[in-house]
Amino acid sequence: MKTLYVIGIGTGNPEHITMQGIAALNRADVVFIPTKGEDKAALAAVRREVCARYISRDVRMVEYAIGSRDDSVVDYGQRVRDWHDEIAGRYEEMFSQAPEDGNGALLVWGDPGLYDSTLRILEAVRRGGMDFEVRVIPGITAIQALTAAFAIPLNTIGNPVTITTGRQLAAGWPEGADTVVVMLDGKRTYEALDPDLHIYWAAYVGMEMEILIEGKLGAVREEISVAREAARARHGWVMDIYLLRKMG
Amino acid sequence: MKTLYVIGIGTGNPEHITMQGIAALNRADVVFIPTKGEDKAALAAVRREVCARYISRDVRMVEYAIGSRDDSVVDYGQRVRDWHDEIAGRYEEMFSQAPEDGNGALLVWGDPGLYDSTLRILEAVRRGGMDFEVRVIPGITAIQALTAAFAIPLNTIGNPVTITTGRQLAAGWPEGADTVVVMLDGKRTYEALDPDLHIYWAAYVGMEMEILIEGKLGAVREEISVAREAARARHGWVMDIYLLRKMG
Repeated sequence: MKTLYVIGIGTGNPEHITMQGIAALNRADVVFIPTKGEDKAALAAVRREVCARYISRDVRMVEYAIGSRDDSVVDYGQRVRDWHDEIAGRYEEMFSQAPEDGNGALLVWGDPGLYDSTLRILEAVRRGGMDFEVRVIPGITAIQALTAAFAIPLNTIGNPVTITTGRQLAAGWPEGADTVVVMLDGKRTYEALDPDLHIYWAAYVGMEMEILIEGKLGAVREEISVAREAARARHGWVMDIYLLRKMG
Repeated sequence: MKTLYVIGIGTGNPEHITMQGIAALNRADVVFIPTKGEDKAALAAVRREVCARYISRDVRMVEYAIGSRDDSVVDYGQRVRDWHDEIAGRYEEMFSQAPEDGNGALLVWGDPGLYDSTLRILEAVRRGGMDFEVRVIPGITAIQALTAAFAIPLNTIGNPVTITTGRQLAAGWPEGADTVVVMLDGKRTYEALDPDLHIYWAAYVGMEMEILIEGKLGAVREEISVAREAARARHGWVMDIYLLRKMG
């Protein structure tokens, strides 16, 4: 394989794809699509839809399964590294079947730069001795899909924004911040925060089943938790994101 | 005017536009394009190119000039508010000429949520009594264009990211941060920072004249400042962004 395009496809609306992403898809000889894991079926369906709509030439699709992280490994860092090693092995195997002078494409949810391990894993594959060029095509992140859905600015005038995880936010509010975006929060960290914060919350942002709730945290956090659990029960998985703002 | 689409068009590569953006453009009866200011000529050219390439129906284009902020006003907040008031007045005038039952489109650099005042100004126009719906179409930001150009992740594993301005960063490194993205830095704030930081710097990111420099800050900051001034001399304006990372 000569070049691997790592294409950000946005957050579940097939129309999030950019013209640059479509051009890259149509230069690929083979497209790799992950298919397994809890939420992976719905996500794979979106990837397939993107390919079906926007690829206008013959291309081989290779679907591949990725296991989940092994929760029996206690150390978080070790658990992530083990999981990445497993995926790197998978990639090596797949890429070695791609035509030597051809291009591959890997479709990444959101943008390849934001809370996604693909680029780090590809680095490991290349360090392992496989030689190919990586070209990254930026995609719409859940952050932009969130602010667009509410038609709000991400930042207040001239002020910083912190993007963080539930795990990190649980350890304390970032000093001096007036706007915090939280991703990867499986533990409803918002429930224990200052009730005077304003929250803009979305589940499945960008997808057809998108759910939006906003308001003063103290007034809407129960509604959010109920909606979140109901959605998870209904779809079998939930992916959410929220923006917290200190109101002046 | 019934609906105003506020469309993020990315950062200068016309192919940054999403399919959602193209669909919205093609629902517009009138497209508004700002044309004046130091850097506005180049930016207007990109907007015109986006329209020329991707609008496949008859649409009225309205170009409008926006003045710069009045630097004789000493108070920063007041200066920004005055400037926003001027633009709001301009929008009211323009929108009142749009067909009553039609749609308008406003093309915004990058994403409408990130360090952009359009949504705030539109809120003011609507508070002033003009009634229309605002729909935001997310776009590729300079942050994603930057990390894509260098093929790097935005965050390190599980850690937060701070997005900030040169003005804010000059006041101090955000506590505990290992990754900081700096936008709107007219004063080369990077020059005075810890030389052991790693910097990924880009000017005109996404555009044909894109310039990329990365390395240990102490080793490359002079090169960056020289490149920045040469680019400004050559093009008459410069727009840059950088990511700073503490290396472990």
